[in-house]
Amino acid sequence: MHAIGVDIGGTKIAVGVVDEAGTVLAKIRRDTVADDVADIDRAIADACSELAKEHEVGAIGLAAAGFVSPDRRSVLFAPNIAWREYPLAERIEQLVDLDVPVVVENDANAAGWAEFTFGAGRDATDMLMLTVGTGLGGAVVVDRELVRGRWGVAAEVGHMRVVPGGHYCGCGHEGCWEQYASGSALERDARQSAIARPALAARLLELAGGDPRSIEGPHVTKAAQEGDELAVELLANLGRWIGEGSASVAALLDPELIVIGGGVGAAGELLLSPVRKGYEAQLSALGHRPVAQIELAQHGNEAGIIGAADLARC
Amino acid sequence: MHAIGVDIGGTKIAVGVVDEAGTVLAKIRRDTVADDVADIDRAIADACSELAKEHEVGAIGLAAAGFVSPDRRSVLFAPNIAWREYPLAERIEQLVDLDVPVVVENDANAAGWAEFTFGAGRDATDMLMLTVGTGLGGAVVVDRELVRGRWGVAAEVGHMRVVPGGHYCGCGHEGCWEQYASGSALERDARQSAIARPALAARLLELAGGDPRSIEGPHVTKAAQEGDELAVELLANLGRWIGEGSASVAALLDPELIVIGGGVGAAGELLLSPVRKGYEAQLSALGHRPVAQIELAQHGNEAGIIGAADLARC
Amino acid sequence: MHAIGVDIGGTKIAVGVVDEAGTVLAKIRRDTVADDVADIDRAIADACSELAKEHEVGAIGLAAAGFVSPDRRSVLFAPNIAWREYPLAERIEQLVDLDVPVVVENDANAAGWAEFTFGAGRDATDMLMLTVGTGLGGAVVVDRELVRGRWGVAAEVGHMRVVPGGHYCGCGHEGCWEQYASGSALERDARQSAIARPALAARLLELAGGDPRSIEGPHVTKAAQEGDELAVELLANLGRWIGEGSASVAALLDPELIVIGGGVGAAGELLLSPVRKGYEAQLSALGHRPVAQIELAQHGNEAGIIGAADLARC
Amino acid sequence: MHAIGVDIGGTKIAVGVVDEAGTVLAKIRRDTVADDVADIDRAIADACSELAKEHEVGAIGLAAAGFVSPDRRSVLFAPNIAWREYPLAERIEQLVDLDVPVVVENDANAAGWAEFTFGAGRDATDMLMLTVGTGLGGAVVVDRELVRGRWGVAAEVGHMRVVPGGHYCGCGHEGCWEQYASGSALERDARQSAIARPALAARLLELAGGDPRSIEGPHVTKAAQEGDELAVELLANLGRWIGEGSASVAALLDPELIVIGGGVGAAGELLLSPVRKGYEAQLSALGHRPVAQIELAQHGNEAGIIGAADLARC
Repeated sequence: MHAIGVDIGGTKIAVGVVDEAGTVLAKIRRDTVADDVADIDRAIADACSELAKEHEVGAIGLAAAGFVSPDRRSVLFAPNIAWREYPLAERIEQLVDLDVPVVVENDANAAGWAEFTFGAGRDATDMLMLTVGTGLGGAVVVDRELVRGRWGVAAEVGHMRVVPGGHYCGCGHEGCWEQYASGSALERDARQSAIARPALAARLLELAGGDPRSIEGPHVTKAAQEGDELAVELLANLGRWIGEGSASVAALLDPELIVIGGGVGAAGELLLSPVRKGYEAQLSALGHRPVAQIELAQHGNEAGIIGAADLARC
Repeated sequence: MHAIGVDIGGTKIAVGVVDEAGTVLAKIRRDTVADDVADIDRAIADACSELAKEHEVGAIGLAAAGFVSPDRRSVLFAPNIAWREYPLAERIEQLVDLDVPVVVENDANAAGWAEFTFGAGRDATDMLMLTVGTGLGGAVVVDRELVRGRWGVAAEVGHMRVVPGGHYCGCGHEGCWEQYASGSALERDARQSAIARPALAARLLELAGGDPRSIEGPHVTKAAQEGDELAVELLANLGRWIGEGSASVAALLDPELIVIGGGVGAAGELLLSPVRKGYEAQLSALGHRPVAQIELAQHGNEAGIIGAADLARC
Repeated sequence: MHAIGVDIGGTKIAVGVVDEAGTVLAKIRRDTVADDVADIDRAIADACSELAKEHEVGAIGLAAAGFVSPDRRSVLFAPNIAWREYPLAERIEQLVDLDVPVVVENDANAAGWAEFTFGAGRDATDMLMLTVGTGLGGAVVVDRELVRGRWGVAAEVGHMRVVPGGHYCGCGHEGCWEQYASGSALERDARQSAIARPALAARLLELAGGDPRSIEGPHVTKAAQEGDELAVELLANLGRWIGEGSASVAALLDPELIVIGGGVGAAGELLLSPVRKGYEAQLSALGHRPVAQIELAQHGNEAGIIGAADLARC
Repeated sequence: MHAIGVDIGGTKIAVGVVDEAGTVLAKIRRDTVADDVADIDRAIADACSELAKEHEVGAIGLAAAGFVSPDRRSVLFAPNIAWREYPLAERIEQLVDLDVPVVVENDANAAGWAEFTFGAGRDATDMLMLTVGTGLGGAVVVDRELVRGRWGVAAEVGHMRVVPGGHYCGCGHEGCWEQYASGSALERDARQSAIARPALAARLLELAGGDPRSIEGPHVTKAAQEGDELAVELLANLGRWIGEGSASVAALLDPELIVIGGGVGAAGELLLSPVRKGYEAQLSALGHRPVAQIELAQHGNEAGIIGAADLARC
C-alpha cells in the first residue's frame, strides 16, 4: 500500500507518495505562512489531493515539529508553529476528499522511523537516532517499537541535561545536551574560539570574511578537511559531546545502533571518529558488553516524509 | 499459576512462592558464599525443591544483580558475584527436579516489574523505577513492556553521567548519577559536611558518636525529622538530584510515573518533596505537558522475588 | 593636597576635585563619543582645566575601563573604547596646562581603592572588592597595596572560571564568574525561569508587562521584597555564586573583608545573606580560621573619581 | 648572614644552614613522632644547636605545613601534625641557646620563596608557585612580596573550586583544584581508567603488576615516555587542569611566571606542554596581554629549608 507522507516545517511543507519499500514516488513542495495554521492545513490538503489524483494511497502521515497527542490526532504544542492543542488530523481529513486514515507523528520520530525501517537501522531492534541540526532531535526504538512516551513527548533527547549550570537553552533551562551537540553549538564554539584564541582561528576567520560572528558550520567543516588545528578540535569536541551523551542514553536503553543525522554528517570521519571515541570512553561496563555501532543516517531531507508515510500505514 | 521467585544477593538468597496476585505465599532464606557460584546454585536449587514440595509451581524466576543475556538464560557479568558468562538457568534446571521453565532477570528489573504489576505502577503504562540504596538501580517500563535493551543491559540508570568531572564512581567513570542520588552519596555528603561545616553538623556528629566517618543515612533521616537544618538540607540535596536526573530521563522516555524505592524512602516527604521540586524545575516544556507522578515503592525487600516470579510466568 | 579624579565611561565622563578625606568638592559631567579617542581626550582636558580654575590641584588620576600599563601611563586595550596601546596620560598632560602628574588606573581598581581608603575597607589591610553590575569587576588589596599584576591586568575577577563548560562569556570563554555573579546573569536567569517555570514566574512577568524578555534586575528585587518565591530564589542564587566564588578567591588571598558594590546592593539582606551563606559553605578550613566580613560598598557612582584622585596622589 | 632553615614534615625534619646566595652549607635530618609536638620541638632544637656549633647563624626559619599566625610566631592549625594554636617560635627560642630571631612560615610559602629568590623566579616580580604533589600547594608573590593574607592562610591554591559538584576533597568540599591537579589525582585517574577502559590501560596494568589499585604516578610517567596512548592522555589531562586553573589565578593576579614544582615535574614536556596549552586556551584577553612563562622549579626537596632560612633573615 502506498501512503502519503507530509513533512511540515515552519515556512514550507514537503509532501510525497511513498511505497512499501520506502521509495518516494512523487513529491511536491509548498510555501506556507508559519503563524497561519489554516493556511498550513490548506497547503497540506491541496498537495495531498493533487498527489492522490495520480497515485492510489491508503493513508496519510503528517510529520509535525511539536508534541503530538498519544492518539496521534492532535498537536498539543509546537515551538515554531502556532499549534496549541490543535486537531490537525481531523482538519486534514475534513479538507481532503479521501477516505483514508490520517495520523500525526512527531517529525523527529518520523525521521528516525524511516532510518529504522528503510535506512541505517533496518537490521536493528534497538536504536537511538540523533538529528544534529540547529537543535538536537531524536528518536528512540526499543525492541522494534518507536517510543512515544505516555503523553507523546518522548525522545526529546536534546533536553537531557549534560552540564549543571551549563549553556543556556531556549527551553529555559541550562546545560541541555543540544547546547553542546548541535550545529548551533558548533557555530557558537567556533565564534567564541575566534574571540578567545584569535591567532588559532586565523583560517576560520579568513573563510568567514574576518568577522567572528560570520563563522558558520560549513566553514568549520571545510577548514577541518584542510587540516586546520582549531577546526579539527571543534569537530572533535562536537563529536565527543555527541558520543558522551549517547553513552548516558545507552546506560538507560542499551541500543545496538546509534544513527547520526543532520547536516554535520558532512564532516564524515572528522566527526564520527570522535563520536565513537567519546562513546567508548564514557560507556559504562565497557569490556563486559558489546559496543553499539555508530553510523550516519542514509536518508536526508526525505526521512520525515518516508517515516510519516510508513507510520501512517502501521 | 504460582511461580517461584529467587532474589540472589552476594551473601544470601531469598526464595518465595508467589501467586498471580503478587502475594508471597511462602518464603525461605539461605546464606551463601559470594565467590562460590556452585554453592549459590545448590542453595537456590535446595530452596526451590523444598518449596515445590508444598506448592505447585509452574515457573522459576531468578533475580540476579548483573548483566543478563537477552535470552534470559545466563548472567554475562556481575560486579559482586563471580558470574562470568554463567549459564545460571541451565544449572538450576539441572539441579532442580521440576519440569518448569527457569528464567533469569536483572534484579532491579525484577523489582521494578513487581512495582509495575502489583504496586505503585499498577495503573501505569510508562514508568521509571529508581531503587535508591547503596547504589542507584532502576527499571524502565515503556508501553507496558520492561525495557531490557539489545543486550540485556538497559536501565543501568545509576551510570548516566550528571556532572562532567564529577564524583568518582566504582565503574571507573566520573559524575555517575548514583554518586549523587544514592544512600551512599547521602552518607558521604553528610560526612563531608561534618568536616567542612562542623558547627552546622553538631547534631549529626552527636548522633554518630562524634566521628564524621560514623555518620550514616539513618542519622540524617532522624536529625532531619527533628528539624536539623543541615540534615534537612542534605535530604533536600539528595532529593533534588533524584528529581533533576529523573527530568533527564523524562526528556528521553516521557513516563507518567516515577517510583522511588530503597531505604531512603523512610525519609518520606522530607525526600519526596525535593524530588518533585527538582523534577519540575528541570522538566523540559513544563506547562506544555503533564507532569509525572512521583511515588514511593509499595513493595520492600520482597519486590525482587515477586517480580522474578511474575516475569518467569510471562 | 587636592587632586582631580576622572571616571571615563564609553559615552560620558565624570570629573571631580577630591580632597584628602575623599570628599568630592566639585564635579563636572561631559558626554563623549565612544569611538573618538581624541574627543575623549579633549573632554577630559577641558573639564580638568575648568575645575583647576577654582581649585588648586596637585595631581590628576584617570580611571579607565581597560588594561593599564604597569607604568600607569597608557591604556593597552579597552573592550568598549577604541584605545589600543594609547598614551592617555601623555595626551592629557599635553592638553592640560597644569604642571601636575597624570596617572591612569583601571576603573575597577580605582573604585576599589576608594572603598579601601575612604569606605567599607578603611580599617582593613586585605580586601576583595566586587562590583556586581553588567559584568563583575573587582579590585584586590593585599597588605594595604593595590594589586595591579605584572602587566596591569590583575583583578579581572569576573573571568575566573567557575563552571567548566558553563555559560558563554563575551570574552570568548565559558563559565566565567561574571556569567553567574552579575546583574546581567540575574536578568538572564529570571528570563529563563519565566520560560521554564511560567507559573512560578507570574509576578515577575506581571512586573515586566508579560514578556519574559522584558524582565530586568529591579523587577526581581521588587518582587523579592514582596516575598515572591522565585525572585527570592533568584537573588539567593546570585548571592550564592558571589559567595562561593569569593571563597575561591579567599583560598588564594585570605582577605579579611569582601566589599560588594554595584546596583544589586539595592536588594540588601536578600542578597547579602546568601552571599555570606555561600561563602561560609565553601570556605576552606572553616572553623580553623576567621571568616571575612562581607559588606556593601559605601561609595556609589563617585568611587571611580575618588579612587583615581587618591591613587594619583600616591 | 647565614641562617638556619627547618623543613618540618609529619615524620621527619630537615635542618640546614643556608647562605645569602641560597646555598645549603650543611644539612641534618631527624626522624620525629608526628603526634608528639614536644618531640618535634626537641628534634628541631637539637639539630639547630648542633649546626650552630660549626656555623655562625643569624636567624632561624621554620617551615611548617599548617596555618601560620600573621606575626609568624605560631601555628594555628595543621592537618597532619598535632599543632593547635601552637607557639612554635617561642618553644624553639626556649630550647635553643642562641640569641637569634625565630620565625615560622608556611612550608609551601617557604618553598615558593626559595624559587622566587634563588630559583626559577629570580628575575620575576609577580609569580605563582604550584607544588604538585600528594596535594596541590602553592605560594603567591605579588610585586616582590610574599602574599600571606590577613590571617596567614593565603595561597591555599589547591582549595579553589574548579568543578561544582566535583571530586570530593579531604577538606570536606567538592571540586577543589587539588583533586584535579595533583599526583594523587593523576594516580586516581589512572586507576579509574584501568577499570573503565581496561584494553587501553594494558601497559599501565602491566607496569603495576596487573592490579588497577597498584598503579602509581611513576608508572604513568614511564608509560607516557614510551608513548603509551592512555598515559600520554592522563598526563595531558593533569597538565590541562594545572594550566586552566592557573588561568583563573591569572585573572586575579596577572603573574609573569608560573613555577611548577613537585614530583610530576619528572614528566617534563609531556606535562609542561599541556600546562601551557591549557593556560593559553583559558587565559582571558589572550592577544591583548603578555602570556606568563611556565617553568619547572629549580630547587627540589631543599626549597623549604632555603626559603625558610631566607624569610627568617628578612
